[in-house]
Amino acid sequence: MFFASDNSGPVPPQVLEAMARANQGHTSGYGSDALSLQVADRIRDLFEAPAAAVYLVPTGTAANSLALATLCPPYATVFCSPVAHIHEDECNAPEFYSGGAKLTLVKGGDRMTPEALRAAIEGEGNRGVHGPKRGPVSITQLTEKGNYYTLEELRALTAVAREYGLSVHLDGARFANAAVKLGVTPAEMSWKSGVDICVFGGTKNGLMGVEAVVIFDPELALEFEYRRKRGAHLFSKHRYLAAQMDAYLEGDLWKELAQKANARCDQLLQGLKGLGLTVHNDTHANMIFFEMPRAAHRRVLEAGAVYYPSGDLEGDDDELLTGRLVCDWSLQPADVSAFLDLLRDAA
Amino acid sequence: MFFASDNSGPVPPQVLEAMARANQGHTSGYGSDALSLQVADRIRDLFEAPAAAVYLVPTGTAANSLALATLCPPYATVFCSPVAHIHEDECNAPEFYSGGAKLTLVKGGDRMTPEALRAAIEGEGNRGVHGPKRGPVSITQLTEKGNYYTLEELRALTAVAREYGLSVHLDGARFANAAVKLGVTPAEMSWKSGVDICVFGGTKNGLMGVEAVVIFDPELALEFEYRRKRGAHLFSKHRYLAAQMDAYLEGDLWKELAQKANARCDQLLQGLKGLGLTVHNDTHANMIFFEMPRAAHRRVLEAGAVYYPSGDLEGDDDELLTGRLVCDWSLQPADVSAFLDLLRDAA
Amino acid sequence: MFFASDNSGPVPPQVLEAMARANQGHTSGYGSDALSLQVADRIRDLFEAPAAAVYLVPTGTAANSLALATLCPPYATVFCSPVAHIHEDECNAPEFYSGGAKLTLVKGGDRMTPEALRAAIEGEGNRGVHGPKRGPVSITQLTEKGNYYTLEELRALTAVAREYGLSVHLDGARFANAAVKLGVTPAEMSWKSGVDICVFGGTKNGLMGVEAVVIFDPELALEFEYRRKRGAHLFSKHRYLAAQMDAYLEGDLWKELAQKANARCDQLLQGLKGLGLTVHNDTHANMIFFEMPRAAHRRVLEAGAVYYPSGDLEGDDDELLTGRLVCDWSLQPADVSAFLDLLRDAA
Amino acid sequence: MFFASDNSGPVPPQVLEAMARANQGHTSGYGSDALSLQVADRIRDLFEAPAAAVYLVPTGTAANSLALATLCPPYATVFCSPVAHIHEDECNAPEFYSGGAKLTLVKGGDRMTPEALRAAIEGEGNRGVHGPKRGPVSITQLTEKGNYYTLEELRALTAVAREYGLSVHLDGARFANAAVKLGVTPAEMSWKSGVDICVFGGTKNGLMGVEAVVIFDPELALEFEYRRKRGAHLFSKHRYLAAQMDAYLEGDLWKELAQKANARCDQLLQGLKGLGLTVHNDTHANMIFFEMPRAAHRRVLEAGAVYYPSGDLEGDDDELLTGRLVCDWSLQPADVSAFLDLLRDAA
Repeated sequence: MFFASDNSGPVPPQVLEAMARANQGHTSGYGSDALSLQVADRIRDLFEAPAAAVYLVPTGTAANSLALATLCPPYATVFCSPVAHIHEDECNAPEFYSGGAKLTLVKGGDRMTPEALRAAIEGEGNRGVHGPKRGPVSITQLTEKGNYYTLEELRALTAVAREYGLSVHLDGARFANAAVKLGVTPAEMSWKSGVDICVFGGTKNGLMGVEAVVIFDPELALEFEYRRKRGAHLFSKHRYLAAQMDAYLEGDLWKELAQKANARCDQLLQGLKGLGLTVHNDTHANMIFFEMPRAAHRRVLEAGAVYYPSGDLEGDDDELLTGRLVCDWSLQPADVSAFLDLLRDAA
Repeated sequence: MFFASDNSGPVPPQVLEAMARANQGHTSGYGSDALSLQVADRIRDLFEAPAAAVYLVPTGTAANSLALATLCPPYATVFCSPVAHIHEDECNAPEFYSGGAKLTLVKGGDRMTPEALRAAIEGEGNRGVHGPKRGPVSITQLTEKGNYYTLEELRALTAVAREYGLSVHLDGARFANAAVKLGVTPAEMSWKSGVDICVFGGTKNGLMGVEAVVIFDPELALEFEYRRKRGAHLFSKHRYLAAQMDAYLEGDLWKELAQKANARCDQLLQGLKGLGLTVHNDTHANMIFFEMPRAAHRRVLEAGAVYYPSGDLEGDDDELLTGRLVCDWSLQPADVSAFLDLLRDAA
Repeated sequence: MFFASDNSGPVPPQVLEAMARANQGHTSGYGSDALSLQVADRIRDLFEAPAAAVYLVPTGTAANSLALATLCPPYATVFCSPVAHIHEDECNAPEFYSGGAKLTLVKGGDRMTPEALRAAIEGEGNRGVHGPKRGPVSITQLTEKGNYYTLEELRALTAVAREYGLSVHLDGARFANAAVKLGVTPAEMSWKSGVDICVFGGTKNGLMGVEAVVIFDPELALEFEYRRKRGAHLFSKHRYLAAQMDAYLEGDLWKELAQKANARCDQLLQGLKGLGLTVHNDTHANMIFFEMPRAAHRRVLEAGAVYYPSGDLEGDDDELLTGRLVCDWSLQPADVSAFLDLLRDAA
Repeated sequence: MFFASDNSGPVPPQVLEAMARANQGHTSGYGSDALSLQVADRIRDLFEAPAAAVYLVPTGTAANSLALATLCPPYATVFCSPVAHIHEDECNAPEFYSGGAKLTLVKGGDRMTPEALRAAIEGEGNRGVHGPKRGPVSITQLTEKGNYYTLEELRALTAVAREYGLSVHLDGARFANAAVKLGVTPAEMSWKSGVDICVFGGTKNGLMGVEAVVIFDPELALEFEYRRKRGAHLFSKHRYLAAQMDAYLEGDLWKELAQKANARCDQLLQGLKGLGLTVHNDTHANMIFFEMPRAAHRRVLEAGAVYYPSGDLEGDDDELLTGRLVCDWSLQPADVSAFLDLLRDAA
């Protein structure tokens, strides 16, 4: 009953098997081995982007920070949501990698609106060199609150960026969950919707630690390569990153894993609604927020469930706290059922 | 017959097995899981340093750069050899992570002498704020040319650093090969010899991509933690780094792997000498440099051996080129014999 | 009728005279000349801080950025108002000088409240290394909206900082205007109120380009010196900075200049009120905001007055726009009267 | 008898007069005032470069660092002499402003040779992303040892840079002294010889603190502007920088000042030779190095002369030490004569 994060579960057996298969003999390093080259090709195929530059890095923060540094000079600012992972959860990594750029928080919640984005851009571009230059727009799909943008919504945002000549970064740590939920292709959810650099996340969807950065303008490739090396994210034994990604692509495992996680979340949603509990986000994929009195949260957590409530467990028993539930691919229907039983007993 | 690098071979089965064992159920992330905590304890035990702070990172460049950034303010300079990995092979990563510190190259070759180190320090400290502040001394053991420092030599260097109040970083990408060659303990080759932060390398000695940074002054721990996260090197699924390191420590596998690599290099040395070829470094562990005419190199490489000669294969057939041979743990005695046979035929 | 900024007027004759006096013969450079040393002593006397380290730099942005970089590691965040000069008007200089720190905007307007400051601090310190470390609090006195904090208000803010172990930077670009308005001493408005590094501004109050950075903890001095040099703000011909500051201190010229500017602003306030115009800030010193219909602004500006209205001059004639008026020391009572006459005619 | 540096003398009266003239009434700030715009035009005229972007900054370190940061990405390296001011005297400012670029020291002395430059470039470009990317070549004219490059020599260096597609920065802190010595125009010594960004120094040649950065490719202008502001080097009261530069250009004062300084150095050279003393550099302009026994240096310095000998004054009386003599515009023939008299008595 572990719903605390989708980075908490094991990796599927295919991933370990692929790593074991890759563990044969000697190869050249730093991404020049055959498997690494082949995996880059497969990602180009998947994204229908034959000219794209593709790089593997071990963490989502590395993927985001390197992508942003490639798009954003140090005297510019990145436009993002106030709850963006790049703002809240990366300990100044984007500021570090960009050499001191700012993040400008677009007013509102996790899902930016075109109007709020436009207002934020307008607010930064009117002081000459006294304020930062306008830099890229960073969009998270799924958002950090588990919500998705439809393709139309995504395109409305990138259209605003394009209008101002700004580039677009997509933080796709949960790209797979969103694509599966929406039933769209990677190409549709990236360059066909105006994205310049897309992070195709693997870690939160079942890999040990691999994210692919897909750069649709190959002119940016060399700069990214230098920045990746300088950031100490170029693996000598690159084949073990490539093997994970290879397994992820094989037979569309990435979709299958995301479907499993999303299905468990749907099961949760139905269960929570059946219990009469308030749920915040209907545009969820594998993450959901629900309300319950503090005392009930306490009982459920004490019974062994793992997730994050929005406040301390000590306090007024009746106060409503919000619980965040995230499903990873490895959860079983029975895990969700058992958790819902706990909730029923507690509520 | 792959002697190009010790990052080219496979990992030993124990590593994959440990990763598979760790791949059970859900755990908390970012190094807070039981296995990660336990591995840190094992490293503290190994280094006889109960108060040390221990962190795992995926690449040697990350280990070095984060360690140096922790020791070196941006307005200072790091003293190192002109062939130091941090200078030649990390694409400005130390400069990036430190925020713009310099590297001051100590005159001489791969093995710094106390006299040359002293001269370099004296040369930087006499211009007030016009030149950089003196920063840490960075020593590589084994050096990038495959040579070791004896404990006495190491201590003579750290004594110079200490005399000027400077801290010491040890780049131990090949720490195991050196320790085994010298027959000394990790403690002897680190804090007992005046090292402040030691990189205990795993990647070049059989892991997929794990280095332990051992910080003997726990007051530096929090800064390192922030810098690691900001550098995007904190793994959410940290257990897979920990599992690799756990296998490495179990039954002193790290020693066994280094012994194997060193033994192959000894076998090479005897063979090369037997062929009458000039060998540069007697203080080798798992890396060796030898001379041979260009035409002979060409024949050997065309026959399938893999290693780096010091110049183009096109040119005067009789000119002597230096070949660099590095052994990893997975090479077999028969591999070395076959290679020596090729050399014999070619020479 | 120039009310656009207090950096637009000439310098008083005493400043040029002091520079001419300093322009005799040869001296040593970089702040080691007799005049520079003497001026540092005078500032220590003025601030009743015999142990303070005092440095001159040419711009307010340099003063703020160097001070913040000295107080804030790159993995931390600075707490400031959403309209702080360091956030709005320095083109990422604090982010640059600190090596990539963040600014956390304290909710509210130009005058931070202790409650909002506390909430901002609480909001940043609860995600371990995932979010930035809490860094210094930056307070502007006068604020960017022309308002002051009373000593009590200032101390309430620094008390919150102290409670969390955070240091305090005072952006005193208009320090003199505030001190004169409040009738308090530099010591009272800085270290006696909990300030760790105070910028004692000269440029906006009549100097060509000199700000003194007063660091009350001398242990931070050397770091600041290195950072100043590295930032390219150490003048070789330092005597010309020192001469300006010397004139500024002589006979309390700094007070006299600020009193003149403040008096003109008082005159403006009375005049604006007499005209029945709405004025935003009563806690003003030399800056004031007033409302008037767009058409009236247009007439006044077309008649030759210079200041910034809050919106375009094209648009609905009757819409109220806010005008910002800033007085510098060189304005004469007749300048203000002439401007008020224009307003009367236009309104 | 002050020969320690050309930043130690007073400014000529024309500079103070121009500042006084500029000190009238209110103007707009940050370089948008009429005088600032006019001065930029004058520099474009002087350099015969109507499209050039021209910026004033207060220190040579700022000029160099901002120019290099505009030309050099953080993952590249700058090629320069081992005694370059940017390496020896700027406390990591180029590393800071570039965001962590390296400096690669071209083997040899203060005057780079095309062969050594080529070797340095070749040495950096052969490790893919493991080493830094090749960045700009930085040339100092006059060099830090008082020597000049002829136009032919300069062009031979920039031709090497061009061959590798690298840009060229000219550190012209003593540009005037070199141009006057060679009898060439600013255009000839900059863009006509392959220079991309030229620092036209004023501070060492009689200004209080102004350097002009002349950027021949206007596409780099906006980036430089942002970097200048972010570096805190954009003066609000820009007219006082412009006034100094205006005086410098008026009637070719910059040439007249350099001629005076150079003439004093010629007088010194003749005198030193007349005394039979060894002089190191015949390609001098306003800086010269000569040898004399320690005891003689001691006597001369004790008698009131000011300059830097190459070693401590305590030690073997007969050991030859090198003295560095730098002439500024304000020295009189009688000052030199008096100094030569001292030398005669001492030697």
